[in-house]
Amino acid sequence: MPTTTAVTRIHNFGAGPAALPLSVLERVRAELLDYAGTGMSVLEMSHRSAAFEAIIQKAEAELRSLAGIGPDYAVLFLQGGASLQFAMVPANLRRDGASADYVLSGHWSKAALQEAQKQGRARVAASTEASAFDRVPAQAELDLDDAAAYLHYTSNNTIYGTQWPQPPEPPPGVPLVCDASSDVLSRPFDMTRLGLLYAGAQKNLGPAGVTLVLVRRDLLERVPGGLPALLDYRLLAESRSLHNTPPTFAVYVMGLVLEWLREKGGLEAIGEHNEAKAARLYAAIDRSDGFYRGHAQAASRSRMNVTFRLSDEAAEKAFLQQAEAEGFDGLKGHRSTGGVRASIYNACPETSVSALAAFMDEFRRRRG
Amino acid sequence: MPTTTAVTRIHNFGAGPAALPLSVLERVRAELLDYAGTGMSVLEMSHRSAAFEAIIQKAEAELRSLAGIGPDYAVLFLQGGASLQFAMVPANLRRDGASADYVLSGHWSKAALQEAQKQGRARVAASTEASAFDRVPAQAELDLDDAAAYLHYTSNNTIYGTQWPQPPEPPPGVPLVCDASSDVLSRPFDMTRLGLLYAGAQKNLGPAGVTLVLVRRDLLERVPGGLPALLDYRLLAESRSLHNTPPTFAVYVMGLVLEWLREKGGLEAIGEHNEAKAARLYAAIDRSDGFYRGHAQAASRSRMNVTFRLSDEAAEKAFLQQAEAEGFDGLKGHRSTGGVRASIYNACPETSVSALAAFMDEFRRRRG
Repeated sequence: MPTTTAVTRIHNFGAGPAALPLSVLERVRAELLDYAGTGMSVLEMSHRSAAFEAIIQKAEAELRSLAGIGPDYAVLFLQGGASLQFAMVPANLRRDGASADYVLSGHWSKAALQEAQKQGRARVAASTEASAFDRVPAQAELDLDDAAAYLHYTSNNTIYGTQWPQPPEPPPGVPLVCDASSDVLSRPFDMTRLGLLYAGAQKNLGPAGVTLVLVRRDLLERVPGGLPALLDYRLLAESRSLHNTPPTFAVYVMGLVLEWLREKGGLEAIGEHNEAKAARLYAAIDRSDGFYRGHAQAASRSRMNVTFRLSDEAAEKAFLQQAEAEGFDGLKGHRSTGGVRASIYNACPETSVSALAAFMDEFRRRRG
Repeated sequence: MPTTTAVTRIHNFGAGPAALPLSVLERVRAELLDYAGTGMSVLEMSHRSAAFEAIIQKAEAELRSLAGIGPDYAVLFLQGGASLQFAMVPANLRRDGASADYVLSGHWSKAALQEAQKQGRARVAASTEASAFDRVPAQAELDLDDAAAYLHYTSNNTIYGTQWPQPPEPPPGVPLVCDASSDVLSRPFDMTRLGLLYAGAQKNLGPAGVTLVLVRRDLLERVPGGLPALLDYRLLAESRSLHNTPPTFAVYVMGLVLEWLREKGGLEAIGEHNEAKAARLYAAIDRSDGFYRGHAQAASRSRMNVTFRLSDEAAEKAFLQQAEAEGFDGLKGHRSTGGVRASIYNACPETSVSALAAFMDEFRRRRG
């Protein structure tokens, strides 16, 4: 058994794949050569073995318990990331003659719309692109199709640093579909308001390579025949994500992260924790007298991705260089927007956030 | 740094996910909390970081070098396993008006055909199902369509324990497509005979969750517009598998396995090694005077999966129980065929194979 050793951990503010809890990494390391006395690594384990059955069932049970997911929803562990879900959602949930509604609040919701439009009709229910996606739309702005196959939105916009305080309200009978890749399980949420939720794991749930899908079972009746097996929610639900070999190791690590979330106190506790972390960074922006300029409008500020600019690109470059030299990683804004982005998902520790806020104050003092 | 500790390793004969080299697991463990001085785990690393760029480029370079893959082939690291490739191959390589030819040599080639038939015309060029897939077809048995979009075959049949000694010969101009999931890089092969090769990693290449695809670049010109991005070989090749977040950790482990293969002496050496391992088990069958009855005909015997029956199910049950008690895991035949199957992929050590051969002799002696 390897002993726990002191490790120099960088302050990881990457947008995803992102920081994991240190205790989870230590457990993975301790179990890596011999999982639970099986004499083999999880990396070597049959997906049909009793040991792996227990792993995937436990991950599902932890998730259902944490988020209060009832038996009327299927829990799927899939591959391909949110980008494959962009195509699977319309392929599975489309209805003859119906269009689908998309709310555009950032880059990824546009990408989701484009995939839907490859397959059939999909329309824009609202967009905040005109103001560079600096906020999410208000309910009153939504131009909703009462007969839509579904209404799709992105609960947190990683690139722009905006987040829906509450989900949008779809017309009666129209299922709400949520891409929650960048804020899933970061705060309490009410799954009964959603027909389907999907999320790549690599921000809040675990490593890259596994995608969580929660889908209300009545929607599975819509799934048309003839879809490729690996794109067919109904078949994947019937086989409990074991139609073919799932990404076993990623499911295992996700299970450990879910267990860690429970031990942290669940979604209420992590939600408060995340709110406090975000507040620290927004306070550093707000007390800077315009030295740091937040991209998001106040009411749409994300608790997951804090985005801001400095006076010019030279100042931003200096900020990023200095930050990197002092052990802050992953702060560069997305290549499409520039600026600075601090991603502070569930596993990003409070100590890293405090250190960054102090660095922001100090950098401003030196440059001011 | 954790020290290397003595670990009780089971004899892992699982069909996949399967044994990995111990030295690879030890390296993964040693690097798990701090990869190459980055201060973070590979599990936490951005797929756009310089460190991960180096990891994926090294994996590709190792693969090209090991298998002699030239620049006229794209190397893709995808998700979804061979089962998703069953659908991607016809979606990408179909040509208007053309059918596709499938050689049926087992369960998985039938599954591949079924996925192709969901999308268009596909026909059976040969099948050995009449003799319970106890061999692969001879070239002379193939009923080939000169105008086929491609000819698809499965190079090794995991469930039945058969393997093609040589690939089939397609008609001129018809690209050969190979599902090599269960024997990829287990012996030298000539990629220039193939238009496309795909393989889930979890048998010979690494952990579950990454799928290797090699595709001749001229075939990418066939890819129709309008495919979902994640199913579009051309787009995936142009983005060098980085259109969205790849399964970063699985790519990393695959890279280590490829490095281990090179250190073992490359494909010539591993091929001889695998042949010797298989010969030991087939010898135990052949000297048993019918106590063990191999499923595969001699000329089609697989070097990867050795399948055999005992006189009746009670004897097989006793064999499997006794084997498990003595530390042999994963020997139960596939649920569709029963019997015994020893999967002896690249990383299955010679010591495990020798121990199994000795156990087979001893079990026979006690029961005989």
